[in-house]
Amino acid sequence: MKVLVINAGSSSLKYQLYDMTDESVLAKGLVERIGMDSSILTHKPTGKQEVTEVSEILEHTTAIRKVLANLTDKEHGVIDSIEEINAVGHRVVHGGETFKASALVNGAAKSEIRRLFDLAPLHNPAAVMGITASEVNMPGVPQVVVFDTAFHQTMPEKAYMYAIPRVLYNKYKVRRYGAHGTSHDFVSKAVAEYLERPLEDLKIITCHIGNGASVTAVQGGISVDTSMGMTPLEGLMMGTRSGDIDPAVVPYVMNKEELTPGEASSMLNKHSGLLAISGTSSDMRDIIEGYEKGEPNATLAFEMYEYRLRKYIGAYAAAMDGVDVIAFTAGVGENAVVLREKVLSNLTFLGIELDKEANKIRSGDPRRISASGSKVEVLVVPTNEELVIARDTLRIVQEQA
Amino acid sequence: MKVLVINAGSSSLKYQLYDMTDESVLAKGLVERIGMDSSILTHKPTGKQEVTEVSEILEHTTAIRKVLANLTDKEHGVIDSIEEINAVGHRVVHGGETFKASALVNGAAKSEIRRLFDLAPLHNPAAVMGITASEVNMPGVPQVVVFDTAFHQTMPEKAYMYAIPRVLYNKYKVRRYGAHGTSHDFVSKAVAEYLERPLEDLKIITCHIGNGASVTAVQGGISVDTSMGMTPLEGLMMGTRSGDIDPAVVPYVMNKEELTPGEASSMLNKHSGLLAISGTSSDMRDIIEGYEKGEPNATLAFEMYEYRLRKYIGAYAAAMDGVDVIAFTAGVGENAVVLREKVLSNLTFLGIELDKEANKIRSGDPRRISASGSKVEVLVVPTNEELVIARDTLRIVQEQA
Repeated sequence: MKVLVINAGSSSLKYQLYDMTDESVLAKGLVERIGMDSSILTHKPTGKQEVTEVSEILEHTTAIRKVLANLTDKEHGVIDSIEEINAVGHRVVHGGETFKASALVNGAAKSEIRRLFDLAPLHNPAAVMGITASEVNMPGVPQVVVFDTAFHQTMPEKAYMYAIPRVLYNKYKVRRYGAHGTSHDFVSKAVAEYLERPLEDLKIITCHIGNGASVTAVQGGISVDTSMGMTPLEGLMMGTRSGDIDPAVVPYVMNKEELTPGEASSMLNKHSGLLAISGTSSDMRDIIEGYEKGEPNATLAFEMYEYRLRKYIGAYAAAMDGVDVIAFTAGVGENAVVLREKVLSNLTFLGIELDKEANKIRSGDPRRISASGSKVEVLVVPTNEELVIARDTLRIVQEQA
Repeated sequence: MKVLVINAGSSSLKYQLYDMTDESVLAKGLVERIGMDSSILTHKPTGKQEVTEVSEILEHTTAIRKVLANLTDKEHGVIDSIEEINAVGHRVVHGGETFKASALVNGAAKSEIRRLFDLAPLHNPAAVMGITASEVNMPGVPQVVVFDTAFHQTMPEKAYMYAIPRVLYNKYKVRRYGAHGTSHDFVSKAVAEYLERPLEDLKIITCHIGNGASVTAVQGGISVDTSMGMTPLEGLMMGTRSGDIDPAVVPYVMNKEELTPGEASSMLNKHSGLLAISGTSSDMRDIIEGYEKGEPNATLAFEMYEYRLRKYIGAYAAAMDGVDVIAFTAGVGENAVVLREKVLSNLTFLGIELDKEANKIRSGDPRRISASGSKVEVLVVPTNEELVIARDTLRIVQEQA
């Protein structure tokens, strides 16, 4: 059983081909600059030479056709023919309140994803392009959609409702949805497995800290709260996103700077966060470099980032009345040793004791970074959203059969 | 030494006359509906009959003239002549970054308060009207301004900066200021006094929960973080204010409902919070009544309110790496027995044990509601913002003399 995982953006397309007999990755790659002059396809077959191809790729159907050509290529291919691909799994950002789990693609599912364009205007249309392009290139192959929001559909009403006029929920479904659900789901399950403890008994705070970042309170395997909101803007400070601010700042700044709603949104999503405070970079690696050199703007950016992450951990401990495990994942969460050290050394009131040496070890495997006496287990768990998509795709296709 | 404390709103004016030899209140009162048809002056002299007077009061100068007439009236007055008033203290909502403490009113102070109109367009102009009206009616009497924001000026940069383009801070001073400063200040000092422990050693979370509500982390007597932001909209869910929401909701709703920035701001400040979720009332007493009857909308409103307050307490414990005391104050904080019980019974991970019987006792004095074994002391401390204003006024006038 081979599953192709596709993550389609508006001008990019990532893919991974899994052999699900052993969950091994046969090949992965990326198409960039779709629709622009010279698109770039980077294909990485496992155990073979990486290939880069520059050509004109104007839309997603061509992109997938080229991906399939690479996967079946005599030289750098990994399968003999397209027929070996048994199923395709797609990452979809927004599943609204409709999708509480992954789903088989059919007419109803597609039109529902279209109906949700409004809640994820940048992301859901791209996902539909990826689905349609897959249908064209691999007719008859079952496809599955896996949603970033689905894991959080278990949140109680008190956590997902905003204290604004109810008509906005009734008419437009304005509420908290969260994101990174596949990652928070994967990591919380990996935590239970690593600790050899039942997931049902654990209160876990999962910190998915990448360029986008969110924290989730996972109680008994279920998401009970998460920091991203109706959109991925709310919550933590991120690479270019503001995270939480006084909502009154939005109309205030719009008035002062004569911004349209779209411009205000763009400012908060693309020109804020680490980039705005450091003035130089949205990349935590650069921020930490500046912080370690004592550069004032980078230092403030780092301190704000750390402080706000720490406050969310405290808030979610209060949400669950306690925490057994804190898990860090994604680019920054897995690699920013200094950030983890700073956050954890300021949470001693939770009974956390950090093993500073263990915190410095870099590895692709889940690992404990708390000291043996720590009342709260702290783990670093490399995330694998593609594997979750591949597993869900396999499960749903098998259920259908 | 007698101090008149004035809290001027755009169409109202509250006053209290203190005898500072024993900090007793000689009289207090309220002028409502200034500028409307029939204004109402309610005068409450201590130990005498309350007086209500309906008349036309078109602006603040007349309002203060009538207040002074009542204070010196033969029947229901409490002083013989206006000359007995030695100083006037004014509550001012926004002191920006300029006022880090209370200040004597002079030309510079007045023009600075005017310069801050922009940050508190509803409140600061009213304060200036109160000051001018006092100058006209009591020429030569020293006046002092006491700011809601001043206590929070000790916040570190990481707590007050928003992760948005820095130009907005540089040009418009967009940042967190907080509010209810006199109350958080008063309550944290009262906590240290009640516990007979040095304020310097304490980590206190003060919860000022009234119609407006804010939580402050007070470490060593100093505000290190507070939930209200640039404006009093941010933070907790309130009577009619939304508190925290995904900032992306603002432009989204503006687009959908074709709202101007002013209308969006009005929606979030006046038509949100408990009122929006319950659909019936912004008053916590009504909400609790509905919650106890099992009314679904009131129950959700109560649960959201409790949950969000609890998360802030957790966040501020993380901000200070621990908490020694949680103190509740203001209308809801002092009286909502059920709310306190719910919040505290879900914070056992902090080592909090509630004394449920003590929690039910109503009193005008500071009191402990945590059990004797509780790791965190929990107190109810009736606030007295007017007394803080009177004390600050006395101190500053004496320093000047």
